Amino acid sequence: MGKEPKKPEDLSIWQDAHAMIRKAKAESIETAWDRLERQTPHCKFCDLGTTCRNCIMGPCRISNKPGAKMNIGVCGADADVVVARNFGRFVAGGSAGHSDHGRDLIEVLEAIVEGDTEHYRITDPEKLTRIAAEVGVVTEGRDLHDIAVDLVDECFKDFGSRRSSLSFLSRVPQQRRELWDRVGITPRGIDREIAEMMHRTHMGCDNDAPNTLLHAARCALSDGWGGSMIGTELSDVIFGTPTPSRSTSNLGVIKEDKVNILVHGHNPVVSEMILAASRLPELVEKAKAAGATGINVAGLCCTGNELLMRQGIPMAGNHLMTELAIVTGAVESVVVDYQCIMPSLVTVSQCYHTRFITTAEKAKFTGAMHFEVHPHNALEQATAIVEESIKAYIERDKGRVEIPTQPVEIMTGFSNEAILSALGGTLTPLIDAIKAGKVRGVVGIVGCNNPKIKQDSANVGLAKELIKRDILVLVTGCVTTAAGKAGLLVPEGAEMAGEGLKEICGALGIPPVLHLGSCVDNSRIMHLCGLVAKELGVDISDLPVGASSPEWYSEKAAAIGMYAVASGVMTHLGLPPNILGSETVTNIALEGLEDIVGAHFVVEDDYVKAAELLDARIRMKRVGLGLSE
Amino acid sequence: MGKEPKKPEDLSIWQDAHAMIRKAKAESIETAWDRLERQTPHCKFCDLGTTCRNCIMGPCRISNKPGAKMNIGVCGADADVVVARNFGRFVAGGSAGHSDHGRDLIEVLEAIVEGDTEHYRITDPEKLTRIAAEVGVVTEGRDLHDIAVDLVDECFKDFGSRRSSLSFLSRVPQQRRELWDRVGITPRGIDREIAEMMHRTHMGCDNDAPNTLLHAARCALSDGWGGSMIGTELSDVIFGTPTPSRSTSNLGVIKEDKVNILVHGHNPVVSEMILAASRLPELVEKAKAAGATGINVAGLCCTGNELLMRQGIPMAGNHLMTELAIVTGAVESVVVDYQCIMPSLVTVSQCYHTRFITTAEKAKFTGAMHFEVHPHNALEQATAIVEESIKAYIERDKGRVEIPTQPVEIMTGFSNEAILSALGGTLTPLIDAIKAGKVRGVVGIVGCNNPKIKQDSANVGLAKELIKRDILVLVTGCVTTAAGKAGLLVPEGAEMAGEGLKEICGALGIPPVLHLGSCVDNSRIMHLCGLVAKELGVDISDLPVGASSPEWYSEKAAAIGMYAVASGVMTHLGLPPNILGSETVTNIALEGLEDIVGAHFVVEDDYVKAAELLDARIRMKRVGLGLSE
Repeated sequence: MGKEPKKPEDLSIWQDAHAMIRKAKAESIETAWDRLERQTPHCKFCDLGTTCRNCIMGPCRISNKPGAKMNIGVCGADADVVVARNFGRFVAGGSAGHSDHGRDLIEVLEAIVEGDTEHYRITDPEKLTRIAAEVGVVTEGRDLHDIAVDLVDECFKDFGSRRSSLSFLSRVPQQRRELWDRVGITPRGIDREIAEMMHRTHMGCDNDAPNTLLHAARCALSDGWGGSMIGTELSDVIFGTPTPSRSTSNLGVIKEDKVNILVHGHNPVVSEMILAASRLPELVEKAKAAGATGINVAGLCCTGNELLMRQGIPMAGNHLMTELAIVTGAVESVVVDYQCIMPSLVTVSQCYHTRFITTAEKAKFTGAMHFEVHPHNALEQATAIVEESIKAYIERDKGRVEIPTQPVEIMTGFSNEAILSALGGTLTPLIDAIKAGKVRGVVGIVGCNNPKIKQDSANVGLAKELIKRDILVLVTGCVTTAAGKAGLLVPEGAEMAGEGLKEICGALGIPPVLHLGSCVDNSRIMHLCGLVAKELGVDISDLPVGASSPEWYSEKAAAIGMYAVASGVMTHLGLPPNILGSETVTNIALEGLEDIVGAHFVVEDDYVKAAELLDARIRMKRVGLGLSE
Repeated sequence: MGKEPKKPEDLSIWQDAHAMIRKAKAESIETAWDRLERQTPHCKFCDLGTTCRNCIMGPCRISNKPGAKMNIGVCGADADVVVARNFGRFVAGGSAGHSDHGRDLIEVLEAIVEGDTEHYRITDPEKLTRIAAEVGVVTEGRDLHDIAVDLVDECFKDFGSRRSSLSFLSRVPQQRRELWDRVGITPRGIDREIAEMMHRTHMGCDNDAPNTLLHAARCALSDGWGGSMIGTELSDVIFGTPTPSRSTSNLGVIKEDKVNILVHGHNPVVSEMILAASRLPELVEKAKAAGATGINVAGLCCTGNELLMRQGIPMAGNHLMTELAIVTGAVESVVVDYQCIMPSLVTVSQCYHTRFITTAEKAKFTGAMHFEVHPHNALEQATAIVEESIKAYIERDKGRVEIPTQPVEIMTGFSNEAILSALGGTLTPLIDAIKAGKVRGVVGIVGCNNPKIKQDSANVGLAKELIKRDILVLVTGCVTTAAGKAGLLVPEGAEMAGEGLKEICGALGIPPVLHLGSCVDNSRIMHLCGLVAKELGVDISDLPVGASSPEWYSEKAAAIGMYAVASGVMTHLGLPPNILGSETVTNIALEGLEDIVGAHFVVEDDYVKAAELLDARIRMKRVGLGLSE
């Protein structure tokens, strides 16, 4: 009786995942797929977005069925209002994650300029000066320190309440800025838009779904052109602007003979120090004294992406690989900062010798070891963490180790600066290739894994479908490892591309899928769109570009999708957000937004159809620009 | 079959409510009580706080029952984490409401100092100078305008990211500030704490319930000593600091022969202008030409409280009277700003000639008339709104008018400044009365109505129980009208008090229950606690005081309760928040917080028992101070 349990081959496209899912099962370790099964079927109301817990006259459940008893909540809110409120808060949660991350980078830069840290420094002074000038700081003939002080100030101001628009809106084409002003969604202050979203969604505030959704767009824009962009740019300033380099990926990067430390989370501030500590000769010696051949720092998720982009560390895996990496039995520690860290990792770690180590005051995990990292103590704490990992190595049960595969080669480091440099310093070669139809368009594939979708089937499937159609693909976040494992992140991957794209990749020596970084680095893609649009004298919505998050799960992905659409980029989602309980909200997302911001969402779980939709959009935009289809 | 529908007498203690509930029924108009019945029983999971929709791997429902299949979510979060996350966002929603309101006042003051408005002005320059000095602005020998510019600046800074503590923390006793620093909950930036709460509650961030709750406390403190306090103080500066005056309350304040305009919401910025417009001779003439004897502006909810405190307008009712006020058939318009405005009011208005008019960009209602009010156009828009109301008067169906009662007298206007003035300029008489046991303690009763509780039964019942015990009661928000209708807001109400309190009230000519304002004005109570504690050289948690919200419904009430507790004041709630699904969270709220911040929550639906608990606390604190019980 009951449903046949799914086979590992149904859950993921990867052999390393299959092996570890089997091992987990054999060792009675639960994974996200098991828990999803137990949580299925989901509550219909929550799934449709029609439950409300925003006050205690409820909780309420709204049914839209004709004649339903529960067609409105106790306050009188209908399904439209409830769905819009919930979605608004969902986007606010995503914006808050990215933006609070951005703020942390400002605080590190502040600590540098104020002399409160010896562990961090300005690695790219040229970029610091350049972005300072962009946000209006006088740089000519000034000392780097003074410029940095002013840059810190300008960045903090974007989190305040006194601006009518954010600093980096200088990167947005004029047409788009005017549209945002007209519609009333120009982002003013990053925290302000989040707080206002929370205010609007309190009982008895904003009770007009379209109005709430407009603010969701503003809130998301404050992420994409604000918090995330600050996060990206200051990370480059502090840790260096990425340049192309080679690395490796999949669970094979975990080394049987080494002390394996996996960094997980999003912010490079901690993980960069872990890496620095792991290279200290005295710690390497300690590792050797413990019987290892050395210390291996590998990445998971976006902290991994940050270090991959700048330091070329190997990537163990993406979201659904985080539990499975521990299941190899060869991981001494998982060191986390914040976001997307499944609390189950504590439990999985406890099944092994693995130390699960938290580092942020704002992201503690019950049952974890906590080493709080601040700018003033970062290297000391990182050293202690590495030492703890070496201790763990001694406790490793070698009989339980299984590393299921050999790593694959990947190429990384495509910051906008690196792309420009690969193009010879100007966008002209890219624009010429687009005009000539060799590169028909560009699509960013971003986001996560979601156990509801066979792991990476759509991330990889969509990328392959697009490059076949001569569409250049840019990836960030958890799509990176997916593309990497599929062989798409190396120049040889161009063999899978259409003739035009293959030619361009060959000429430039680049892969058909470029890795631009972590999830906050989607701001790089926005910036690039702004640059190209300005160069062509058009709005972003006129460009032959698209965005997709085929396997998303996170509030941050919703925020990213929202700012992409509000910036004029049609965005595909492999799964819908919890909005289907409102026809009004669903229609605005899938259609209405086109009239307001010149782009809309598409929800499609079939990646071939998604590719066709993105392709059709690009075709339309090419025609609009007077180019061949 | 089925349950007998409840009689009006079971739903509210008020005769005016009973009459209007009957009229609503007769006219097939639905009220909150009807909708509550349709929404009952509530979803058990949402009610217990154990549903999670913070990512789309779910939605998840967590059951804590032994052997439950759904004991953790897809990410691995257990009931503790899910409940803490939901409660954290709940508090953030409340803090955001109050604080975004506070920001709006700063923007009005900014418009005044920048000359961008002719409609608002500084009404209390003495208070402006005084509070500017309190937050560190140099005031000696300076022009009022320059002081105001600096005050605006300081207030905005509290919403930014560069402070390690908020300006008005100068009002907090040193012991308490040190405790907050020690525990790590000193509020830094108002918006920041809200954004960080949203960040922490994203999937994979803060997964330790106690840690999340501590941040909920910090977030709430940034409301009580930040956003709300700024809201209160700047409202006094702009519209005048309240002084004691007389007014009237209940549905009888709606006048059959007048153009009745009800102001509803929270912020005085719009409603003050409505009142000003209603007094313009040309509009009064227009009203008379339309057949009315004049224009009557009456209050609902907290906007009502704001105008009651400063302008003495009559109060039509509190939260559960808002629908019923329209049912009188004599309301020409309901003019709203934001918060606690049941969306059902649009529907109820549509059953009559009543115009439902929104004024804030951030609080639109589908189906409403929208007159957007800004500092530069406030009086013009208010004039248009009053004119629209006069038009509505002509359409009034006199056959459907029923005004069920005669208004009762109330006394209002007890700002801290007014209380000090009533005491002769110093706190000494109050402290002496407390020392002598004539006033055994002070309890603030605040908050809302909730259709789950017979309207105002607990608000009034608790107040009566406390004054009997010689405990002075301070009220704000929706408890005001409740106390007023019960005759507790006039000096004669002291007849219901114990001997000691009666004597003091008689000597000072004050009621046994003092009205301190709207919900943001709970900051006045916090400030008063700070003043008394400093005077006695003790912490707030040492004072014989308590707080209660017997009939609360709103996220803001949760934020208020949280900042009261975190400030050291034991707080009674008549209903629990949605936290009972986590033993950990529930235990922290009801007990654990005592060890951390020296106060805790009490949940008790029986107001006599609640009075006993508050009394016992006061007795204990009196003994602690070496006073008689």
